Amino acid sequence: MSTYHPLTEQEAIDIARSIEAFFPADASLSCKEIGDGNLNLVFHIKDSVSGKSLILKQALPYAKVVGESWPLTLDRARIESEKLILEGKLAPGLVPQVYKYDPELALTVMEDLSDHVIMRRGLIEGNIYPLFADHISTFIANTLFFTSDLGMNQQQKKLQVKSFINPELCKITEDLIFDDPYTLSDNNNYEAAIEDAAAALRSNDELHLEVAILREKFLTNAQALLHGDLHTGSIFITKQSTKVIDPEFAFYGPIGFDIGAVYANLLMNYVAQAHWSKDEAAREAHRSYLLEMVVSIWNQFHDKFLALWEAHGVDRLANEAKGYKQYYMKRILQDAAGYTGAKMIRRIVGLSHVIDIDRIDDDAVRNSCQRQVLNIGTQLIIRNRSLQSIEELVDIVKSN
Amino acid sequence: MSTYHPLTEQEAIDIARSIEAFFPADASLSCKEIGDGNLNLVFHIKDSVSGKSLILKQALPYAKVVGESWPLTLDRARIESEKLILEGKLAPGLVPQVYKYDPELALTVMEDLSDHVIMRRGLIEGNIYPLFADHISTFIANTLFFTSDLGMNQQQKKLQVKSFINPELCKITEDLIFDDPYTLSDNNNYEAAIEDAAAALRSNDELHLEVAILREKFLTNAQALLHGDLHTGSIFITKQSTKVIDPEFAFYGPIGFDIGAVYANLLMNYVAQAHWSKDEAAREAHRSYLLEMVVSIWNQFHDKFLALWEAHGVDRLANEAKGYKQYYMKRILQDAAGYTGAKMIRRIVGLSHVIDIDRIDDDAVRNSCQRQVLNIGTQLIIRNRSLQSIEELVDIVKSN
Repeated sequence: MSTYHPLTEQEAIDIARSIEAFFPADASLSCKEIGDGNLNLVFHIKDSVSGKSLILKQALPYAKVVGESWPLTLDRARIESEKLILEGKLAPGLVPQVYKYDPELALTVMEDLSDHVIMRRGLIEGNIYPLFADHISTFIANTLFFTSDLGMNQQQKKLQVKSFINPELCKITEDLIFDDPYTLSDNNNYEAAIEDAAAALRSNDELHLEVAILREKFLTNAQALLHGDLHTGSIFITKQSTKVIDPEFAFYGPIGFDIGAVYANLLMNYVAQAHWSKDEAAREAHRSYLLEMVVSIWNQFHDKFLALWEAHGVDRLANEAKGYKQYYMKRILQDAAGYTGAKMIRRIVGLSHVIDIDRIDDDAVRNSCQRQVLNIGTQLIIRNRSLQSIEELVDIVKSN
Repeated sequence: MSTYHPLTEQEAIDIARSIEAFFPADASLSCKEIGDGNLNLVFHIKDSVSGKSLILKQALPYAKVVGESWPLTLDRARIESEKLILEGKLAPGLVPQVYKYDPELALTVMEDLSDHVIMRRGLIEGNIYPLFADHISTFIANTLFFTSDLGMNQQQKKLQVKSFINPELCKITEDLIFDDPYTLSDNNNYEAAIEDAAAALRSNDELHLEVAILREKFLTNAQALLHGDLHTGSIFITKQSTKVIDPEFAFYGPIGFDIGAVYANLLMNYVAQAHWSKDEAAREAHRSYLLEMVVSIWNQFHDKFLALWEAHGVDRLANEAKGYKQYYMKRILQDAAGYTGAKMIRRIVGLSHVIDIDRIDDDAVRNSCQRQVLNIGTQLIIRNRSLQSIEELVDIVKSN
């Protein structure tokens, strides 16, 4: 069974049973394939005796998006598995536990998180997650600091860069986020009603310059080992627990890109509350909550990253040069603002959307939200290199 | 003979003879080992019948500097050979031809350039090289443009980044250029007479901030495949010909680093003409020549790089975004200024010096030159991020 082939449910059960000391000997295992079938098979294996369960995630050798299918490397399963294991070491408790990785089958066996919900869905329902800012700021600070030249042996880091070279998945980001939305592309996908706003993206010189610079940083700036796709659909959550999943886009890139992914998705939810909130008061409350979360994530990330730097910094000059830490943190904030904008814009006019916006059934409200997301995104990008504080970012959101 | 061992002269002759169609059948080959024995063996093989000759360069598994010896990867021979072959394709005629690479023996067989002289020596002797600015600007523009995300397939580029990960040789640069000169280090090496100037480097906060930023770019900015050690001792030259050698430090880094290496060594020669020129008139003439060369290299590099971009740019947004090319080129100039300064300073107080300065036998003149190099280097570093033109760089040189 070691040559690659998509697993059957029975094979998945057999593999699950072979995970040592997980299921009891008398386990009665059932299996359900719960993936969307576009990129991966996801088997949910449950023991009806003990109630224990596992997830088997197997990469498929192709990607399917809106009917099209193209080949996609199975090496992403290795990247995902290795990154998950590393994240588990650097940010304990904030990712699913990995029990086994089988390179031949492109298969990862991991902790079942079905007691959690996907955060995007939770936010749409108006839920509050009091520990999220703390958890995600720890996740980002720990995983990024300890994989950067500030926090790990700089020669080992170069070997890690090599191990996480991820051309195929990076190309998806490069095309869908940093190219298509700003030109006429068959990949673009938006409603005729916002054609004027989409056209404005294609003719804004100031915007193009900044997107080109953000694109260049994505292509060249090996600052830390990113998650690479850290939106609210990659986060499982409860009031007590946060688990970041799906790091198959992991690669060495600019730290602000991971932060921007979180922010973009919180802010799209902020805009979409025009529809999802039950009333004006609920809307204002949920929006305030989201903006406070944005500020709190930055402030906690900032303090935690600097505390790690103070305690574990490996680079003498970076540790000691006066003003360097402030310079470094401000650039992260500026990059985060730019990438937030880029990730908002692409979810409105690009190939892949978010349900926060798309499932708004009132056309006028939905289109109004789409325009607002584009306005905020455009301003965040245009102003990213001059941004001085997280409050300035929030002001841009509020005034657009 | 395929397991690694340092070659004997007879083995070198046998390998040279096996290079197909190079030496005639009746060749009478003699061999001389001409390396300095610190890093590599260099065998010069000559046929007394045809007069034809070859170089065999074999990496040694250690480095020796000032009596100390430490292990050093033989993989650098692969990097050197692959980079030489790539340079030969991208900048034809500007590197020695490679006839054979043997990975087991860490051996490269290449064109003999003993009709050329090492440029550092030629400049000390006051020679003029009318084609150098043209040649080196072509070399830099071609090798860097076509290995950057602007000029090559961006997924292939990532695989090339992977292939040229070069931790051990990068560490030499990181330590000797971007750390030691700014702290108390056993690696430092300077005369007691300039202790005050060396101490000033260690207490200059503004300088440390800029060096930390330049160090970070060296560690993280995978802009193009650099030569990595492009000083005037790595250039063989005649009035008609320029050949760049020794790319064993090759890795993906910031474009300005290669330009800075050339500039630093031209400018140290500029300073050292206080001793080497025969008289005041010769000194002024040679110095003017060197500064004109600095300006001409930038202007030609700038125009050639942009012409390549215009003709061969692969990145839609980078090609089309208004203002991006200017932004890109200005950053290269600013980085080049910073790296020029860093490479000047390290040659005065760091481990490895240049004979332009060290062989000045008059103590007062030599120490005065050392101080002048440190002053120019410090100003170039401190002002690198605000530099607007190549003329401003020249003004800094003239006024220090």
